[in-house]
Amino acid sequence: MSGRLVIAGLGPGDAGLVTPDVTSALAEATDVVGYVPYVARVPNRDGLMKHASDNRVELDRSRHALDMAANGRRVVVVSSGDPGVFAMASAVFEAVEAGPEVWRDIEISVLPGITAMLAAAAKAGAPLGHDFCVINLSDNLKPWKIIEKRLRCAVEADFACGFYNPRSKARPEGFGRVLAVLSEVCEPQRLITFARAVSTPEEAISTISLADATPEMADMRTVVLLGSSRTRMITRDGRAPIVYTPRSVPE
Amino acid sequence: MSGRLVIAGLGPGDAGLVTPDVTSALAEATDVVGYVPYVARVPNRDGLMKHASDNRVELDRSRHALDMAANGRRVVVVSSGDPGVFAMASAVFEAVEAGPEVWRDIEISVLPGITAMLAAAAKAGAPLGHDFCVINLSDNLKPWKIIEKRLRCAVEADFACGFYNPRSKARPEGFGRVLAVLSEVCEPQRLITFARAVSTPEEAISTISLADATPEMADMRTVVLLGSSRTRMITRDGRAPIVYTPRSVPE
Repeated sequence: MSGRLVIAGLGPGDAGLVTPDVTSALAEATDVVGYVPYVARVPNRDGLMKHASDNRVELDRSRHALDMAANGRRVVVVSSGDPGVFAMASAVFEAVEAGPEVWRDIEISVLPGITAMLAAAAKAGAPLGHDFCVINLSDNLKPWKIIEKRLRCAVEADFACGFYNPRSKARPEGFGRVLAVLSEVCEPQRLITFARAVSTPEEAISTISLADATPEMADMRTVVLLGSSRTRMITRDGRAPIVYTPRSVPE
Repeated sequence: MSGRLVIAGLGPGDAGLVTPDVTSALAEATDVVGYVPYVARVPNRDGLMKHASDNRVELDRSRHALDMAANGRRVVVVSSGDPGVFAMASAVFEAVEAGPEVWRDIEISVLPGITAMLAAAAKAGAPLGHDFCVINLSDNLKPWKIIEKRLRCAVEADFACGFYNPRSKARPEGFGRVLAVLSEVCEPQRLITFARAVSTPEEAISTISLADATPEMADMRTVVLLGSSRTRMITRDGRAPIVYTPRSVPE
């Protein structure tokens, strides 16, 4: 008997950003699997088993979920944001590829969610309204030299950028190195937005010039949006400024 | 009297991907503004005026919406996908910046949606599960040389890529040029996914090697996902293959 595995995105925090498809999948689940704070966002109900695990055990968690699904359970793996953007979907597929043949027979689906970068961009205006790139700044799973190369290529291409995982307690120095590279290749007036805990009660969003950015402005709950050379700010009396990237690049 | 303007993302098509926040905003609107097929997705009701306009009149549409909001209406501008990703948010802010001072006083908010690229990635597996970039391939609003430069930088950085607007009747040749550039800089086995009309009854998704890709595989309803050099495919008997990019890059 084969069950079913759904990898679902809970969005950045607010219930108003959870899609009906994800809500339905959770209503039909027998088991919810994920990182502690994300599993905590799923309401308890009779018939639903919750399996919360720590950060950095994504492969163990994936194998556990696949094993339950292979045994006929209806399992939902929950991620914050979108499961396909620096979240659980790739981890589950790594486990499938390396795992027993029977796991390839499981019905697996991915349900997208609102990823933090796009929720942050919406709150700031439309800084990602033109071509952009998305980089995970953690060097847990890739060497720093790859991060640096991607930053330089991104600025060379004049992409706006969304940066995930800019800084953690275990890696306090990485974001300083990122700002140093960016300061070398971008003009000092380049706009940079720090968006912390988007769509939660602790939300804090501010946009400044790159020259004024310091490493401690970011933590693990922050996504950072770097403008392209064309990103602009509209100031308004008594209202938050609007940061946006125009749709066109002139000849 | 000042009204309110909401720029809302309807997602790629399926009602199960529309966030509750967007549904609420539409329920409170006096006016809905947008491109004909997107306005058609909003159910009619008493007290709701629909203002549908043609493609390529984004600034006129924005000014009309801002004007109504400045006159006290509760206006929702609808986009497909996410309004901040090659959609209406930047157009509205361009209009605000160039428009009368009173428009800066309007309460404006952007409600994110599921953008086509992330819905397509979810259907394919997790091809955007590592660093990636997003490029609008239309040369309506930027010169071709910028598109080519960005493609080359993206491959140099080894980003996976999401491509919007690969091909239209007015620009039948552009996507052929894109494939020619990619074939020059990527290995022939590089995976490329064509995702047409994601989450609608006409959905069609297929992943092939870049060497086998031809221009007519894309049209204006297609988003194209190019893998990084590390993107992989898991084949399965009797089930669709899974395309995903691993989370790590080895030293």
